[in-house]
Amino acid sequence: MKLKIKLLDWSAGVPVVMLNPKTAEKLGIHVKDRITLSVGAKKLSSIVDTIKKIVKPNEIAVSSEAKEIMNLKNRQKIKIELTPPPRTLVYIKKKLNGERLTKKEIRLIIQDIVTNSLSEPEIALFISAMYEKGMEFNEIIYLIESILETGNKLKLKNKLIVDKHSIGGVAGRVSPLVISICSSTGLTMPKTSSRAITSPAGTADAMECLAKVDFSIEEIKKIISKTNACIVWGGGLGMVPADSKIIKIEKLLKIDPKSQLLASIMSKKLAVGSNHIIIHIPYGKSAKVNKTKALELEKDFKKIAKHFNIKLVCVLTKNNGPLGNGIGPFLEMIDVLKVLKREDSCHNLEKIAIEISGVILELTKKAKKGKGEELALEILNSGKAFEKFKAIIEAQQGKIVDLKPAKFLKTIYSSKNCKIKEIDNKKINFLARITGCPNEKSSGLYLHSHEGDNLKNKQKIITIYSRSKTRLRHAVEYYKKEKPIIFG
Amino acid sequence: MKLKIKLLDWSAGVPVVMLNPKTAEKLGIHVKDRITLSVGAKKLSSIVDTIKKIVKPNEIAVSSEAKEIMNLKNRQKIKIELTPPPRTLVYIKKKLNGERLTKKEIRLIIQDIVTNSLSEPEIALFISAMYEKGMEFNEIIYLIESILETGNKLKLKNKLIVDKHSIGGVAGRVSPLVISICSSTGLTMPKTSSRAITSPAGTADAMECLAKVDFSIEEIKKIISKTNACIVWGGGLGMVPADSKIIKIEKLLKIDPKSQLLASIMSKKLAVGSNHIIIHIPYGKSAKVNKTKALELEKDFKKIAKHFNIKLVCVLTKNNGPLGNGIGPFLEMIDVLKVLKREDSCHNLEKIAIEISGVILELTKKAKKGKGEELALEILNSGKAFEKFKAIIEAQQGKIVDLKPAKFLKTIYSSKNCKIKEIDNKKINFLARITGCPNEKSSGLYLHSHEGDNLKNKQKIITIYSRSKTRLRHAVEYYKKEKPIIFG
Repeated sequence: MKLKIKLLDWSAGVPVVMLNPKTAEKLGIHVKDRITLSVGAKKLSSIVDTIKKIVKPNEIAVSSEAKEIMNLKNRQKIKIELTPPPRTLVYIKKKLNGERLTKKEIRLIIQDIVTNSLSEPEIALFISAMYEKGMEFNEIIYLIESILETGNKLKLKNKLIVDKHSIGGVAGRVSPLVISICSSTGLTMPKTSSRAITSPAGTADAMECLAKVDFSIEEIKKIISKTNACIVWGGGLGMVPADSKIIKIEKLLKIDPKSQLLASIMSKKLAVGSNHIIIHIPYGKSAKVNKTKALELEKDFKKIAKHFNIKLVCVLTKNNGPLGNGIGPFLEMIDVLKVLKREDSCHNLEKIAIEISGVILELTKKAKKGKGEELALEILNSGKAFEKFKAIIEAQQGKIVDLKPAKFLKTIYSSKNCKIKEIDNKKINFLARITGCPNEKSSGLYLHSHEGDNLKNKQKIITIYSRSKTRLRHAVEYYKKEKPIIFG
Repeated sequence: MKLKIKLLDWSAGVPVVMLNPKTAEKLGIHVKDRITLSVGAKKLSSIVDTIKKIVKPNEIAVSSEAKEIMNLKNRQKIKIELTPPPRTLVYIKKKLNGERLTKKEIRLIIQDIVTNSLSEPEIALFISAMYEKGMEFNEIIYLIESILETGNKLKLKNKLIVDKHSIGGVAGRVSPLVISICSSTGLTMPKTSSRAITSPAGTADAMECLAKVDFSIEEIKKIISKTNACIVWGGGLGMVPADSKIIKIEKLLKIDPKSQLLASIMSKKLAVGSNHIIIHIPYGKSAKVNKTKALELEKDFKKIAKHFNIKLVCVLTKNNGPLGNGIGPFLEMIDVLKVLKREDSCHNLEKIAIEISGVILELTKKAKKGKGEELALEILNSGKAFEKFKAIIEAQQGKIVDLKPAKFLKTIYSSKNCKIKEIDNKKINFLARITGCPNEKSSGLYLHSHEGDNLKNKQKIITIYSRSKTRLRHAVEYYKKEKPIIFG
């Protein structure tokens, strides 16, 4: 059946269409069923709503998400048909029951995710199955290959391509510092970063405070040819569309299975053609992983790198609370600028950035063995890193501006002499998310004090910022109840 | 903030609202966030879409699902506020990690489900966690109690209240036969049944072919006072609203964790005040459970019954394919009528109905020990059961009519002399669902032949019916590929 597109300036977060109830009845389609929209070979499955009057029997309204994916125009005719039941739900259940999936089964699941044939609760089940039952080495390789197959690639001509990634879990923007320091030596660093999964800000969220991060592959090639580096959002490039969808649900569920974490990071790195990769793994009591799991992850990453014939080094750092003082896109970017301008070391943010940069400079032979950190600090002190960062921001159509945190705020003070015994990363991240991060860029937290600090009575501990009064109230309630900062 | 309701005759399957993008911006709300609608003490959390023009900045459009739950009128003013992050996602993750949940944690999860504060992917995670990690006896009791607490109850004055339930998994409508036979002896049987979870039809779906099944509690009391029995849909009574929501997602995911199965059945039986309960557990190769699991379930049901101080008997029957010839609401009801009219025993549908009725008649002392089945058959043969069924249908505002299966059909014939070795219930149910069941009542299957039957060349095996040509095509493709009927 063919219907005429009616655009309504309607946004639903996911591909949804509206049919007139008569059309639905005629097709034997019910509300919440799924139909497939086809334009040529391009197909997209969408959820069905029904609406009287606004959509006539020969029309179909599409949400802006469906419109963008399929590039639809008002009054365009489009073919629709009932989406067959997802053939891959049985494979998801196979994994849920602890069985190993074949290459073909994983490929079909990933294809169904890309065409939107699997619904959100079904993808949630897949994530839960991976979380519960894990995946073997071969399954992870198939997952990476399938994610790559269903996406675009950045094909640079440069031979040596360097990349840095953090597994996340700890607030603080190390990447902009590392990219600025290392790429100022001439290294090619096409950094594609993600938006936050379970944290209050991803590198892309923070970069977006100063510059555009959403480019086409062709535009990125131009940026690289100008500055030999970039720090962009990977999700909009269509490089790993399956991964982007999975991450969206992971965000909601706040879980992040190991197999998907490995596949997510490695597929992104491979899609840009990286052959020298540094993975930062913060570990510790309230980081994403403990030391044992960090060492396991290092082994997994190295094994995958070997399979794909690329050089990979993991940098494990013991974590003592967030890196830097700020948490949230604006507040983290403010820290990055302070370090680049040599105004402040922002607790241990500078230290970790120097450590990782040192490893990269040695791995790429820009520095002699044991001399990497020294060179990194020299570059930072010379102002070359800040110059490089400005060049990247400009190439990405932005400029360095003053960033102001959100207007609603509440500062919490100590009520006696005390010592900060621990800052719980998970709770502090959750607190920052309650303020509105990462969607509200200027919301977030500022830590006046850090782990191990001795506080006097009435000293500032933390300031909570939010764009919404309600969210600020929820955040202060959470802070009081859950105590993310523990005193000794 | 207060906004004016705008009704659009818009159905989305779940509570969704549409805001003008300006209103959303002002409130710091993003597409796919959740807001809480409040009218007095009644609260409902809904997903946010945005739309320009159609909804003005001071208006809010609500889907018919939100409208019905909150009983909203056009142009009514309603209070909205941002839904706080669901406090219970942490408990769901606790279960996912294999920990035991407390009474309070389970109660809060169930409350969040009832107020729609947990999204569908989050409920999917809860179902998956129950499926994976199971629940201990106490947790199941808490689950039942929480489901009951958040729902309405049918308070009948009768002392002896009898109920029958099947765990499902095998097509065939035993309940209408059992209720008709047993209640004709004067037993009070307020049967609330569910719509299909993973099967092509629930008893409510089949009953709806002839009568209304959606009544208020007060209406049911009147029906019971007339006929001392009813066969209605439990979901619309608001008795177990949490269970209804969970079942909706289970339907989609096609999984049915044991703890939820136990809680679902027992909460429904307790909500109507049953104190004599018969649970039918079909077991076998392609039934929902094998014999070991059936015996386990029997133990679980009895333990729960003991806790609540009620009499409960399980009837375990070895299953050899669907009960009856028809699969799908119309086709199953056609079988029921044939048995009641004494036209056909419909394979082993009559046999199982007699067996279960016998147990009930003995348990309630209507028949002497060992004489239950004899009495049940006598009632059936005398026409009393059919009379009782007609009385129930009439009390439920329906009447006995001729039911015609859907117009698109395909009959499959044998291609040689052969024997039906096995009918795979799971595959046959899935096939029936592809035809459009349970939503399309007249779609479904008719089995001309059964397990163990010897077929000649060109003999009818099965007829596939569907209201939609596309669905019929998908079904025939599935039949050919997956072979739900296995020949020896």
